[in-house]
Amino acid sequence: MSTQGITDTIAALATPPGEGGIAVIRVSGPEAVGLADRGFRGKVTLQQARSHTAHVGLFVGPGGEDMDQIVATVFLKPTSYTGEDVVEISCHGGMLVTRRILESLYAYGCRPAGPGEFTKRAFLNGRIDLSQAEAVADLIHARSERSRRSSFQHLQGELAKKINALRENLVKTTGLLELELDFAEEGLEFAGKENVKDHILKGIELVSQLLETYHTGRMLRDGVKVVLAGMPNVGKSSILNALLKEDRAIVTDIPGTTRDTIEESLNIRGVQFRIVDTAGLREAVDRVEQEGIRRSQDAIRTSDLLLLVLDSSRSLDAEEIHLAGRLVEDLRGQVQSIVVLNKIDLGVGMNGHLAEKAKVLNPRAVVRISALTGEGIDDLRETLFREAILESGGHGESGITITNARHFHALARAKESLNLALKSLTDGVSGEFIAIDLRAALDALGEITGAVTTDDILNDIFSKFCIGK
Amino acid sequence: MSTQGITDTIAALATPPGEGGIAVIRVSGPEAVGLADRGFRGKVTLQQARSHTAHVGLFVGPGGEDMDQIVATVFLKPTSYTGEDVVEISCHGGMLVTRRILESLYAYGCRPAGPGEFTKRAFLNGRIDLSQAEAVADLIHARSERSRRSSFQHLQGELAKKINALRENLVKTTGLLELELDFAEEGLEFAGKENVKDHILKGIELVSQLLETYHTGRMLRDGVKVVLAGMPNVGKSSILNALLKEDRAIVTDIPGTTRDTIEESLNIRGVQFRIVDTAGLREAVDRVEQEGIRRSQDAIRTSDLLLLVLDSSRSLDAEEIHLAGRLVEDLRGQVQSIVVLNKIDLGVGMNGHLAEKAKVLNPRAVVRISALTGEGIDDLRETLFREAILESGGHGESGITITNARHFHALARAKESLNLALKSLTDGVSGEFIAIDLRAALDALGEITGAVTTDDILNDIFSKFCIGK
Repeated sequence: MSTQGITDTIAALATPPGEGGIAVIRVSGPEAVGLADRGFRGKVTLQQARSHTAHVGLFVGPGGEDMDQIVATVFLKPTSYTGEDVVEISCHGGMLVTRRILESLYAYGCRPAGPGEFTKRAFLNGRIDLSQAEAVADLIHARSERSRRSSFQHLQGELAKKINALRENLVKTTGLLELELDFAEEGLEFAGKENVKDHILKGIELVSQLLETYHTGRMLRDGVKVVLAGMPNVGKSSILNALLKEDRAIVTDIPGTTRDTIEESLNIRGVQFRIVDTAGLREAVDRVEQEGIRRSQDAIRTSDLLLLVLDSSRSLDAEEIHLAGRLVEDLRGQVQSIVVLNKIDLGVGMNGHLAEKAKVLNPRAVVRISALTGEGIDDLRETLFREAILESGGHGESGITITNARHFHALARAKESLNLALKSLTDGVSGEFIAIDLRAALDALGEITGAVTTDDILNDIFSKFCIGK
Repeated sequence: MSTQGITDTIAALATPPGEGGIAVIRVSGPEAVGLADRGFRGKVTLQQARSHTAHVGLFVGPGGEDMDQIVATVFLKPTSYTGEDVVEISCHGGMLVTRRILESLYAYGCRPAGPGEFTKRAFLNGRIDLSQAEAVADLIHARSERSRRSSFQHLQGELAKKINALRENLVKTTGLLELELDFAEEGLEFAGKENVKDHILKGIELVSQLLETYHTGRMLRDGVKVVLAGMPNVGKSSILNALLKEDRAIVTDIPGTTRDTIEESLNIRGVQFRIVDTAGLREAVDRVEQEGIRRSQDAIRTSDLLLLVLDSSRSLDAEEIHLAGRLVEDLRGQVQSIVVLNKIDLGVGMNGHLAEKAKVLNPRAVVRISALTGEGIDDLRETLFREAILESGGHGESGITITNARHFHALARAKESLNLALKSLTDGVSGEFIAIDLRAALDALGEITGAVTTDDILNDIFSKFCIGK
């Protein structure tokens, strides 16, 4: 990875589009100060400015026309965000104003920045590692406090520290193994079989720990997907409303009102839940409803947690038993479920059928509520929080949570290679093969921090960024 | 107006809400640096920082928890935006990140800023006058290049300069008049009747010039409202599409397709036009259509320019003549109109009826087009631009355009008072009464720049701002 290729200067709006008090346009590259200076009219030129200083002035377009009153802040390399010379132009937050200033900068010789290009340059210039770069995007998109905290931890380089320590260990072990191979004829032993085995086992342990945090980590980042399912008119929409404490879904007492899936966001103690209300699970009457039920089934299959809602005031009819049974069959073991017995305000306790069904589904919990009176809703919220977070792997011993699919897959490949190395070692295979497996594990781990990477990986990562970051 | 009342420190998100690379939180007030410092962890404290310098660091919440990596830029009074100590905190542009930092600042003792409160403080601290403060909001909301330019001119204080020069002149004249009154018994004359008259006349001239620019100015700011009207099926929607060069309205050959009014934005040489397509003007068949026609008539009455569309391929029928005649009656003199003869591709020239009707309407122009082939559309665009801007008062001799209703009304009151003063002078009324009228004119003019103002005026102005400005 080299930065010799970077000769151009990029510019883009760095703040969210739209209207606000101010907007910030970021310029970065070898010519950042000189090109920004072409539009800047202040007491001093930006080229005279020291690093980390802000300068009030006018910004003028290539035709000499005044664009706006601005504040230009200069950050000189290497202590800028990108590691290059950077000028941040703070102007009035109007869409036309910002567009006109950007157009002027392009006319002066800047190139429009691509998605994530500022952060990519920060990585290429060694200001941050790849896991930190990815954390920038995660932090910006964080929707829950836990997700924000986890992203910030990655941004601070905590994951990179762990991975680098492990890689260092494995590099040393691999080096000794390879040295041994060079001196194989002399029969010298540098590494020591037990020592090598010990290092590999420690590596497998750490990688496994990190892998285990991924399910929780992904839920922290994207929100825990909870699907409300059940027969029509058992009160799914009312439960959604009670959880949200507002009237988002249209609630009627005509079965089959909710035709499309409705997704709502709910925050329980810093964890984001995406609650999906679905059409009832009865046999569909018309085609529109059939489509609704098909979508419900899709939603259930891709959920993290299923809330099966039953009406505790009446016994199950034949259709309900049939459909609930099919649901149980479909999902067994794949999606954790909570059984919610609604309408306890109607005074009829859970009957035999319900208890039996609940058992068949092997739910994590059974919660008795009344969406109408609100009784039990707090209990349901607590149950959701507990089941989603506490019982799904937690944050792992290291306190670091994997939230990124790319990291997960790299760790999985590293674990596979380490397991192969362990097997070779146990089987007494030549050190040559063990070293090859260890090198593969090192490469996989290196992809996470960007120590080992390719243009394809980089392009894939940064293309998902927003422009201006 | 005094700033002695400002003892609190305010904070708000200054950049548009939403996700972006970075967001900026602005803190202003006597305690800005100290309160921001409570969350800032960098190489130096912000209290040690010189004005106009940027500092990289961590921002921590009241519980000691890390919030984000930030850049804090310090602007010390009086050379900041507000004239107070200001800290701008540039953080990652995530909604949760910015909210958490703001919450921390509030916990540290900042108060959430109200709409326009930063700009209001800039005004109260004498950094800008009131017309400049209002220009900030206009600049941010500018949708067309001409509107941006006009707002920027006001922001630069051009209007204030004009008004202040006029006030200075009138203050001098009024002073001399009042001095004369004091020495009335001695029969001394300081001002000279002709001299006073001359100043008043000059004042009336300038104020009148500015008032004349308001119609254009308002159109520049809000866009020129153009209404397409005509019988069903003469091609109004097709003309809208041809102007926009895209298919916004659903075009069919069934009369009465366009039931609701459709408004589209069109930019012709930097001027924004709001083109409103209306239901046809025929007698309504059903109630939905009746409502559509009522809305058309409303739209026409509040428009800046009417495009009356006629089908040049056929003669007018009795209903069309009746309705067009009524339209002519309704609008005579109030709304300028352009007659558009559509469907010239059908090869039949403008017939006698059309020529006659066009004459009755006294249009500013008659344009022959074919929405189908595009012939004449460029001519129509040019005609719209010319009629809306060039022939509607232009920018006035002073090059300054009044865009703000508050300024318009203050100028109108100033003109009225000046006219009264002139009449008193001509009628030989005592100087006392002339001086009262001149003082009234001065007050009205002073309201524009804020030299004379009340809390009510200020609150009214700044409540229309967005928060963070």
